[in-house]
Amino acid sequence: MSYSFGRSLRVQIFGQSHGEMIGCVIDGLPAGIKLDTDEISAFMARRAPGRDANSTSRKETDVPRIISGLFDGYTCGAPLTAIIENSDHRSSDYGKLKDTPRPNHADFPARIKYGGFADYRGGGAFSGRLTAPLCFAGAAAIQYLRMCGVDIGAHIYRIGGVTDTPFDPLGVKSETLKEISSKPFPVISAEAEEKMKAVIGKARSDLDSVGGIVECAALGVPAGIGEPRYDGIESAIASICFGIPAVKGVEFGLGFGFGSSFGSDANDQMRVSDGDVVFDSNNCGGVTGGISDGRPIIFRCAFKPTPSIARPQTTADLNEMTTTTLEISGRHDPCVVHRAVPAVESAAALAIADLMLAVNGNRHV
Amino acid sequence: MSYSFGRSLRVQIFGQSHGEMIGCVIDGLPAGIKLDTDEISAFMARRAPGRDANSTSRKETDVPRIISGLFDGYTCGAPLTAIIENSDHRSSDYGKLKDTPRPNHADFPARIKYGGFADYRGGGAFSGRLTAPLCFAGAAAIQYLRMCGVDIGAHIYRIGGVTDTPFDPLGVKSETLKEISSKPFPVISAEAEEKMKAVIGKARSDLDSVGGIVECAALGVPAGIGEPRYDGIESAIASICFGIPAVKGVEFGLGFGFGSSFGSDANDQMRVSDGDVVFDSNNCGGVTGGISDGRPIIFRCAFKPTPSIARPQTTADLNEMTTTTLEISGRHDPCVVHRAVPAVESAAALAIADLMLAVNGNRHV
Amino acid sequence: MSYSFGRSLRVQIFGQSHGEMIGCVIDGLPAGIKLDTDEISAFMARRAPGRDANSTSRKETDVPRIISGLFDGYTCGAPLTAIIENSDHRSSDYGKLKDTPRPNHADFPARIKYGGFADYRGGGAFSGRLTAPLCFAGAAAIQYLRMCGVDIGAHIYRIGGVTDTPFDPLGVKSETLKEISSKPFPVISAEAEEKMKAVIGKARSDLDSVGGIVECAALGVPAGIGEPRYDGIESAIASICFGIPAVKGVEFGLGFGFGSSFGSDANDQMRVSDGDVVFDSNNCGGVTGGISDGRPIIFRCAFKPTPSIARPQTTADLNEMTTTTLEISGRHDPCVVHRAVPAVESAAALAIADLMLAVNGNRHV
Amino acid sequence: MSYSFGRSLRVQIFGQSHGEMIGCVIDGLPAGIKLDTDEISAFMARRAPGRDANSTSRKETDVPRIISGLFDGYTCGAPLTAIIENSDHRSSDYGKLKDTPRPNHADFPARIKYGGFADYRGGGAFSGRLTAPLCFAGAAAIQYLRMCGVDIGAHIYRIGGVTDTPFDPLGVKSETLKEISSKPFPVISAEAEEKMKAVIGKARSDLDSVGGIVECAALGVPAGIGEPRYDGIESAIASICFGIPAVKGVEFGLGFGFGSSFGSDANDQMRVSDGDVVFDSNNCGGVTGGISDGRPIIFRCAFKPTPSIARPQTTADLNEMTTTTLEISGRHDPCVVHRAVPAVESAAALAIADLMLAVNGNRHV
Repeated sequence: MSYSFGRSLRVQIFGQSHGEMIGCVIDGLPAGIKLDTDEISAFMARRAPGRDANSTSRKETDVPRIISGLFDGYTCGAPLTAIIENSDHRSSDYGKLKDTPRPNHADFPARIKYGGFADYRGGGAFSGRLTAPLCFAGAAAIQYLRMCGVDIGAHIYRIGGVTDTPFDPLGVKSETLKEISSKPFPVISAEAEEKMKAVIGKARSDLDSVGGIVECAALGVPAGIGEPRYDGIESAIASICFGIPAVKGVEFGLGFGFGSSFGSDANDQMRVSDGDVVFDSNNCGGVTGGISDGRPIIFRCAFKPTPSIARPQTTADLNEMTTTTLEISGRHDPCVVHRAVPAVESAAALAIADLMLAVNGNRHV
Repeated sequence: MSYSFGRSLRVQIFGQSHGEMIGCVIDGLPAGIKLDTDEISAFMARRAPGRDANSTSRKETDVPRIISGLFDGYTCGAPLTAIIENSDHRSSDYGKLKDTPRPNHADFPARIKYGGFADYRGGGAFSGRLTAPLCFAGAAAIQYLRMCGVDIGAHIYRIGGVTDTPFDPLGVKSETLKEISSKPFPVISAEAEEKMKAVIGKARSDLDSVGGIVECAALGVPAGIGEPRYDGIESAIASICFGIPAVKGVEFGLGFGFGSSFGSDANDQMRVSDGDVVFDSNNCGGVTGGISDGRPIIFRCAFKPTPSIARPQTTADLNEMTTTTLEISGRHDPCVVHRAVPAVESAAALAIADLMLAVNGNRHV
Repeated sequence: MSYSFGRSLRVQIFGQSHGEMIGCVIDGLPAGIKLDTDEISAFMARRAPGRDANSTSRKETDVPRIISGLFDGYTCGAPLTAIIENSDHRSSDYGKLKDTPRPNHADFPARIKYGGFADYRGGGAFSGRLTAPLCFAGAAAIQYLRMCGVDIGAHIYRIGGVTDTPFDPLGVKSETLKEISSKPFPVISAEAEEKMKAVIGKARSDLDSVGGIVECAALGVPAGIGEPRYDGIESAIASICFGIPAVKGVEFGLGFGFGSSFGSDANDQMRVSDGDVVFDSNNCGGVTGGISDGRPIIFRCAFKPTPSIARPQTTADLNEMTTTTLEISGRHDPCVVHRAVPAVESAAALAIADLMLAVNGNRHV
Repeated sequence: MSYSFGRSLRVQIFGQSHGEMIGCVIDGLPAGIKLDTDEISAFMARRAPGRDANSTSRKETDVPRIISGLFDGYTCGAPLTAIIENSDHRSSDYGKLKDTPRPNHADFPARIKYGGFADYRGGGAFSGRLTAPLCFAGAAAIQYLRMCGVDIGAHIYRIGGVTDTPFDPLGVKSETLKEISSKPFPVISAEAEEKMKAVIGKARSDLDSVGGIVECAALGVPAGIGEPRYDGIESAIASICFGIPAVKGVEFGLGFGFGSSFGSDANDQMRVSDGDVVFDSNNCGGVTGGISDGRPIIFRCAFKPTPSIARPQTTADLNEMTTTTLEISGRHDPCVVHRAVPAVESAAALAIADLMLAVNGNRHV
């Protein structure tokens, strides 16, 4: 259970890393959205493997084939479904991993949970590969949100301790988001880019991997979106983000920085300017009480380093019940953070679209 | 909508800070749990206001009255419902706040969302007071979990930059959790306690407030609990935690620390010892792929400083649409972090109980 | 689990027949509805016991006490919660039933399901008494729907084989619904009323009980409400109705009569009149494909006879595991159908309000 | 929204009648079920069009292609996904229907709801064709249920007023169900079969269509399955059944017959025989209080006649807003009842599997 999420907009993901196909069904998009499939493909290409020297050499064309939900180019009220072929998988890389769970992977709990029936090839249904259909769904939601005046974009905030220029929490602009999204390596600061790439390169040559943080902004969300308490914007975004493999933390605004802060500094004071309520700062990340307040929504997701590294590691042989040494020989990213950027954007888009539909209703556009 | 959460174990909270009553309904607890109501009351007393010099002087007896779901002292399969009187509220404190939203409170978005119909007294349904019924539900879940071999406990990890001794992520013991829970100010290190109390005292005398971080552990959760992807343990805990007022971040294991880490260090290697799989470390916080792996589950929640401070603050007068100065005169905590500890434990308990019921089924115990 | 239902408007019922209190929480009503509590009480009085010679002599004042969700007389966005005291219960009537399940009651499966922990007094949480909170929720939804132009009303369609004049499926008017709702015994035909009362009277004197059918109409539902397939109007209404004790069938329009019909007769042909699409008939009961089409929504619910009859019945003694004779001595209705009328109206109102909120959004009114 | 249903076992249907593909995702089947795909295909063939003289001449091979969720022949915990090509559709048949809604079809409300963006070809996503993926899901659930000791089968109870021998509500046997399922025209009585076929034949030659009723039995469901009130067995089965196109009524046991019955006759008395509780009758259809009691679960679904008939019908031209005459020329069944039998079985299987998983948990088998 639970390859699905959402209430007013329901997303169902399916597939395994080395199965025949992966894909998703999106149920609840209003009818009448003219979907730009080229834009969807371009969005998905941002997370596809094999695009540059910083990624795995596994290549997937990752062209989604839309098999339902579109009619004459518009969403028609039926579930929007896309399938993606797993064209370039090499299962032989993984056969020997069946009994030797990889550290920090889901291999071990999956084996316990599914009693040996889990598809262990390439992480099976736990693989990062299933962020491809998430990105398909996100790309569709982003097009819907744009019709509602909402823009979403993210950048690499940190990799291996190197930090990019953060978003201006109050003043971040749509143009900035657009510009970043066009970069193969989405950072704001050229200097940070250089350092981050050096860190990744060193990790690669060290047969190591490196973790990072993605920062995401949603602009134009009107005040009043989000339901109180347990269906607030923060809960909705966080619960999808934690479904992206490797995510281990989610914070809004100052986030964990609040742990060292005082109310006199942290409170975002308000005033009236030109007949509008404006804020002096945006420490809250655009959300109070779970509900948007008109400011940019700003959050960050922490990613652990790619677990699959080529160095010898100690693990258990679950068949022999002995300690053994594992050497992983498949193709693996030394860093997934740059490829995870559109997945985080997708999580934000799907959460916000779901909550906007609850407030605005699901009539055709 | 959405004062409720959970799938196999559904919790519905209700009430407003200055309404007649608050309470909750818990639907899905197995029949046959012998509930110790004294233990529930003791648990709730840990978050009740007015217990010590570090808290608001508002006093609520907070005695939950169980009106359904118990029969002869055991859960009977019917929803467990508790109501709590709001005995000591002073709404006159809040009348003047109707048109002047307090910075970092939900006042402003609530007014937009509900068009002036929201109960603004004391934050209405957005108030921290509604963590009382959450703690009732959590206390019941904790008793159920104990029957399943699971223990849950939390401590103050940080207040105003002062950090307590962290939990030993691999070796934390139930006895430690129990001992901490008996303290009025739940920290591990006496030195940290002294410093934290000094920070809170200074914030009080400065008419200021201070934020912090709570760290929580769940011990004894067997491997295989949690559903993959979007209903994993991390998603479930995070989405409830973000429903606790003032929570702005949730992280598991190393969390945001992963952003500066390398796989060679961060990977938790495994071995076989005495016929069992054991781990060398617990950077993942006991969860991989959303699923428990038998290690302690460790996570932290960041809390922003209490927004209500007595210092003059700038805000908008939404009636006059002018900038104005706000001076909040009600009784308010300079710090809620120590009182939030049982709320975080409750979020963990309810999320884990829900996911255990999905795996184990809901038969009577 | 599952004393709750609804997606955009979530209703959570609680309580047991002979527990301390029963009640409900309604989460998702838009803010700004001016609730007429006298009207709610009058609505609930229609299902209350002890009103006339046709009912049980158990008397409950059934005055709901609203403890959250209302502020200055208007819904405020917080969950609307009502509690109702169980003032006049006599548990001693039921003690001896613990081990001897009553035929056609939930006693037997409840004992199996809850392993002897179920509250067996008066049917516990399975009792018809829990239609009181359902009617509270329904009464609130009816007031919301009236603001949307929707009127709902029902009548006794059949009791013990005596049939009332059916609703005119195409021409039924709001005034008719209002008039029926003011009758203590809600039928259209005075002749049918007399015969039905005679049947009930005979059942009473025979120590027997009698079943029946309720017919319900919803007028003014605009075309386009309801989601396709599994969240259509029919699915939503039926799943709530089957949660009313004793309901064993639900049908829309011609319903089971379609089993003997031909398309040439059954098809509701359309034409254009005065610029509007009109139908020549309403065999479909106002719903096609799960979606409203602007016609009156018409459905019927079948109720089995009250299971509790005073005649000696054969049952099992589950303690001794012997066959025994049961004589039920409590106060019981020979017929619940007239008291069930507002419960059916409530099911319709809550289902339709839920589906209208999905289409229209949940903004304050 | 709402091409999905289920809580512990979630089914998501997708596709349009004349789109590229239809299919479904089933999330929540335990790992370790050895799926017999030939049996699935044979089950689906029972509802496929074009098999005999009683059906539409449209032919679809309807071979489901499983693209995820199976590994080495066993369910692996990942969502089970099947896609089915729409190989033999002739959209030209439908083009002219765009503006002229067919009586008793969803055409009219769909046009209102989706504002002209709905895929009108062949009923789009409202088509009976989408019972093919429902049957795929049902066939998988049936194999799971068989491992749990549960057998499900249905027969045509009535067509055009001709009634088959009903199931013996207490004594119906698995062998009988199996035997019926092997018949192309699933009835018990050869005499009824002959008469029903004559009725269908006459409807065909009259350019008419005919409605009917399907009766379904689930054997071997242990007592205690189903959640009380709004997630009972009746609610769960009914809400899926009403998602099958043309279903207009659902009843359990005596169903609407209860409307003319008395408690003294209708109550199913119990006794103890050979150490077991046995019932004297099964008027309740195996469910009391929403919960199974160990008897066969018996219910019936009423189907309206196929709306598409070749006779001239009056309808609206929604473009010209004039009254017009419609002549439908596509290939259409004069009766869908016999093809609907596996769809009803699927609804029962999926509802019962979902509720059994809630009680028993979702561990691998």
